[in-house]
Amino acid sequence: MKRKSFKTMSCPIARGLDRVGEWWSILILRDAFAGLKRFDEFEESLGIAPNMLTRRLKALTASGLLEKRRYSLHPPRYEYVLTARGRDFRPVLTTLMAWGNKHFAPEGKSVRLIHVPTGREADPILVDRVSGLPIAAPEFRMAAGPAANERTRRRYEGAEDAR
Amino acid sequence: MKRKSFKTMSCPIARGLDRVGEWWSILILRDAFAGLKRFDEFEESLGIAPNMLTRRLKALTASGLLEKRRYSLHPPRYEYVLTARGRDFRPVLTTLMAWGNKHFAPEGKSVRLIHVPTGREADPILVDRVSGLPIAAPEFRMAAGPAANERTRRRYEGAEDAR
Repeated sequence: MKRKSFKTMSCPIARGLDRVGEWWSILILRDAFAGLKRFDEFEESLGIAPNMLTRRLKALTASGLLEKRRYSLHPPRYEYVLTARGRDFRPVLTTLMAWGNKHFAPEGKSVRLIHVPTGREADPILVDRVSGLPIAAPEFRMAAGPAANERTRRRYEGAEDAR
Repeated sequence: MKRKSFKTMSCPIARGLDRVGEWWSILILRDAFAGLKRFDEFEESLGIAPNMLTRRLKALTASGLLEKRRYSLHPPRYEYVLTARGRDFRPVLTTLMAWGNKHFAPEGKSVRLIHVPTGREADPILVDRVSGLPIAAPEFRMAAGPAANERTRRRYEGAEDAR
């Protein structure tokens, strides 16, 4: 079943999701951040079928999140490394990790964020770069921007009415 | 095609994704944060088929991200509101929005984050709650936690070797 494309939606969340492709792609990005690069490394880490992995790597490369690089000429061998666009996905993974740890890890954390120089566990929170204030409702909220279409504008106007 | 469940994986990212269900669910959560509550509001905002919306709302309720509440007795009418677990998903949406805006909005922002009291646009960044330091590589990285299984441990050990 081909899922509906979100590419034509104006919402940045929908477009971002469209470019990531599907869940496997997010786990491939997770592994790329962990330093994995080669096909067999991803395959072992993910326990994914090779044809599926090939497809997802191709899609991530086409979306500009990974770059395919030849690291050996004879025999020709390739590795996949994060582009700037791919590296910018890191905060999404980090917040997803924190949420998963908080709500779906009854036996304790299997992955955590570490501050390397001290070895201490970090607790990631979102703040506004300009004011330094923690991003929390209701002080901060999403709103329609200058490029919003009709539907997006209505979505956030409705929200204002609801308050 | 039924997608493979990530529930049995030990990674908090994989488990979190499993509970969200699929992309539509993320957009439903986006709308719930915008203040939408009723079936027809979600339907209009998303342009989603009713049977698909019903399925996703049920899954989000079963995963404990939304709560179904009756707001009218005669006729019986229901609304869907975010639980604490659902509200904790907000940073994931916020980082996804920022990433989408940066990379996939050539015509400008259609959604942005606003600091309500001042009306100014906010720029969300991740910092460590304890030290206040911005979460960035290589000072911060994911590492295997106490509950990690063999595969997770290997994933992050390999990463250390790669450095």
